[in-house]
Amino acid sequence: MEKQIKPKAVIVIFGATGDLAKRKLYPSIYRMYRNGKIADFAVIGAARRPWTNETLRENVEASVKDLDMNDQDLQAFSSHFYYQPVDVTQSSSYQDLNHLIQELEGAYQTDGNRVFYLAMAPEFFGLIAKNLKAHGLKEGAGWTRLVIEKPFGHDLPSAKQLNKEIRSAFEEEQIYRIDHYLGKEMVQNIEVIRFANGLFEHLWNNRFISNIQITSSESLGVEERARYYDHSGATRDMAQNHMMQMVALLAMEPPINLTTEEVRSEKIKVLRAMRHIKPDEVDDYFVRGQYGPGEIDGVSVKGYREETDELQHSDTETFVAGKIMIDNYRWAGVPFYIRTGKRMTEKSTKIVVEFRNIPMNLYYEKKEDQHPNLLVINISPEEGVTLYLNAKKDQVGHAEPIKLAYNNNFTDHGINTPEAYEKLLYDCLLGDATNFTHWDEVALSWSFIDAILAGWRKKQPDFPNYAAGKMGPDASDALLKKDGHHWWPIGD
Amino acid sequence: MEKQIKPKAVIVIFGATGDLAKRKLYPSIYRMYRNGKIADFAVIGAARRPWTNETLRENVEASVKDLDMNDQDLQAFSSHFYYQPVDVTQSSSYQDLNHLIQELEGAYQTDGNRVFYLAMAPEFFGLIAKNLKAHGLKEGAGWTRLVIEKPFGHDLPSAKQLNKEIRSAFEEEQIYRIDHYLGKEMVQNIEVIRFANGLFEHLWNNRFISNIQITSSESLGVEERARYYDHSGATRDMAQNHMMQMVALLAMEPPINLTTEEVRSEKIKVLRAMRHIKPDEVDDYFVRGQYGPGEIDGVSVKGYREETDELQHSDTETFVAGKIMIDNYRWAGVPFYIRTGKRMTEKSTKIVVEFRNIPMNLYYEKKEDQHPNLLVINISPEEGVTLYLNAKKDQVGHAEPIKLAYNNNFTDHGINTPEAYEKLLYDCLLGDATNFTHWDEVALSWSFIDAILAGWRKKQPDFPNYAAGKMGPDASDALLKKDGHHWWPIGD
Repeated sequence: MEKQIKPKAVIVIFGATGDLAKRKLYPSIYRMYRNGKIADFAVIGAARRPWTNETLRENVEASVKDLDMNDQDLQAFSSHFYYQPVDVTQSSSYQDLNHLIQELEGAYQTDGNRVFYLAMAPEFFGLIAKNLKAHGLKEGAGWTRLVIEKPFGHDLPSAKQLNKEIRSAFEEEQIYRIDHYLGKEMVQNIEVIRFANGLFEHLWNNRFISNIQITSSESLGVEERARYYDHSGATRDMAQNHMMQMVALLAMEPPINLTTEEVRSEKIKVLRAMRHIKPDEVDDYFVRGQYGPGEIDGVSVKGYREETDELQHSDTETFVAGKIMIDNYRWAGVPFYIRTGKRMTEKSTKIVVEFRNIPMNLYYEKKEDQHPNLLVINISPEEGVTLYLNAKKDQVGHAEPIKLAYNNNFTDHGINTPEAYEKLLYDCLLGDATNFTHWDEVALSWSFIDAILAGWRKKQPDFPNYAAGKMGPDASDALLKKDGHHWWPIGD
Repeated sequence: MEKQIKPKAVIVIFGATGDLAKRKLYPSIYRMYRNGKIADFAVIGAARRPWTNETLRENVEASVKDLDMNDQDLQAFSSHFYYQPVDVTQSSSYQDLNHLIQELEGAYQTDGNRVFYLAMAPEFFGLIAKNLKAHGLKEGAGWTRLVIEKPFGHDLPSAKQLNKEIRSAFEEEQIYRIDHYLGKEMVQNIEVIRFANGLFEHLWNNRFISNIQITSSESLGVEERARYYDHSGATRDMAQNHMMQMVALLAMEPPINLTTEEVRSEKIKVLRAMRHIKPDEVDDYFVRGQYGPGEIDGVSVKGYREETDELQHSDTETFVAGKIMIDNYRWAGVPFYIRTGKRMTEKSTKIVVEFRNIPMNLYYEKKEDQHPNLLVINISPEEGVTLYLNAKKDQVGHAEPIKLAYNNNFTDHGINTPEAYEKLLYDCLLGDATNFTHWDEVALSWSFIDAILAGWRKKQPDFPNYAAGKMGPDASDALLKKDGHHWWPIGD
């Protein structure tokens, strides 16, 4: 597993002037460079704006300026960056781009390896893919890979259409669909925690686990993303991809090895085993919400419909909670509860695995007083593992919860912590697609989600139904209560 | 379980001028008093010396002076103490004692309840018990209980003789045999950790546990206890009682409830299931050691035989390590390793439960690189639970051990931490004998230990065989190595 390979490539970023490139991609490339993971590489920033190499380099330098490098080294780094203005609808742009790639392949000795990273509006994904093929940009001397940002479609038909366009130009093996949650340290740790610990995997089934809860909450509202968000909503934006991927990692059978094929194959089996919810049953399984005015950390904030004029009649959900049942031998009867939304109490992503109590109650007056064991996987902002056990704390005699915690503290946090994008980009350069989403996963999760959205479309929602600063509408609590469960608090 | 009872009694301490009374019993009674567990009580200190009430009270006050009480309250406390000079061979002493008891029963309204605590040389235990009966001291208006300190015999025959003498005067239900390890917070937590956590009990058997290690190490030598110790040795002093009790708690089946009878009955079943070692086989299972000169914390210290003149030819073991096999369905094949001794690296009592690895190795180059999960129960000096799990720490890909710790930190440590003796004395006053040793346990453990001692007597030991400051002789490591195991370090 311990690869000390320095992959070589020319990386073309479509959308080089955009927010994602600046916030995530440039810092990630910088970290790979500084950590010695890459040396022979060039980056071509491609976008509409009439930037020059210098404009790009200044932007790149600005995007990594908080990191620890002196001016000289920083310039050495940014000298790997080249700007190419493109109009993605114009043949000439692709020809120009091809010339530049070939030139840099010579200059940087990159063995003809090419990454095309589409960090821009999804409506152009198909067009660009086709043009890359049509103009021969796929035909380098080495390998060629296409990295695609979310969203991958808006529902199953649109995702199929997009996939058809991309697949007409690229093979499935060449396509790297980013789900940046899969690059997060603690999401990658889900399988390690399960499969490298004698303590857990034996208990990882319906005999010993009562339910699993996944929360990904934001305290922010939609802000400048309002237009995009209002066409998407929490379910498409978060549940279809990130939340379902985490369910798949938590529920998958142990793969026979860690190759891309085996891991994906096990995840796909989970997605296939998810109980398909009919549109009429949606209220039994899923809850939607939209925030009204409220208060976060003592500050009054607006409701969703007041954020901008165009949202004032919006029925878009800013919150979704759901119960996912996996009808296979291992998980029959164990609910996987997910919830995600905007303007919730605090920003946090965590997984709580609630174990069943032992069958006999020795230490409590009433069986209901028992505290179940909880394994909490903290994904962000804290990274770590917390285990809640029971012990006797004094002479009183009954057991009380105790907390065993591990925090993933890196020596110089924020610098050495490999960021999700850094890991995924490096994986892509190494040709490891394990932590990218296969088309089958995309299709299965859209198929699951489409039925829920269809159910909701039949009825006008009663929005807003939760105050900003709350953990969603009351119906979210009721969803667990009817099963005899409750959401575990996400704070400490 | 949550009893708010204030038991009433006259407590008679034989050996009131001795070390145990001063170091443990008076502070324990003080803590019970200060914590409001007892109010209507009197303590009679009985011993040979011609002390007065005032001498005793001064001694009592001195023994608790580090604790937090003002002078007035301290005197109110010590006013409960009365001194009675006794010669335990003289009838008149018992008559005098009886008069004083009756007088105090009236003065303190103790409902005629009596505790006789034998905190003195064991050769008088039988004699005192008989005399207490003969002179009617057992016949109070309330209950009567007899508390006996270790050692309970020197081997099975002497223990049987002692028991016969005591039992001729007291019923088994009236006898409270102290094993102060059973009063330790984290020893009492062994069963809670097992039976109040869904996570552990399901795995608590030979399919999931590889081996269990119990270490109780002292860094001190024998010092002023030399004479007593040289007639005893590590095996009688520590293994026969404390270590075997811990094995029983770790290995017992879940009791149907927590009554004294059920818990003891389950512990006795474990002791009966221990594989009896024939004297010829002792080297396959047990290792003895005696320290030579060495170094502890950078300071040179003498060997055992140099401690005093009378020890210069001693063959007494100051260290013992052993493998105990429990031949029942749950534990077949799982070694319980114990080790205890003087002049070891550091003072520490802890239990390490080593879990088996999961059957497939996904994260390591070689199967041997796997790190098993460890549950560490820290008994002293730290109190707490530590769990070693595995997680991925960086991009490298393989798993590394992570540590999840819970420390039993009381707010004002040393004051509020209930001490072993305080808990046991309070249990005795409440009539709860669960954490005292039943005769059957004593008999079974002597029977087990006698065979080992018999095996050793056949051969001259090659002493000294470990340097002071080491974790025992090499043979102790070899004992585990031949099973493919190793001692886990007791430090962090």
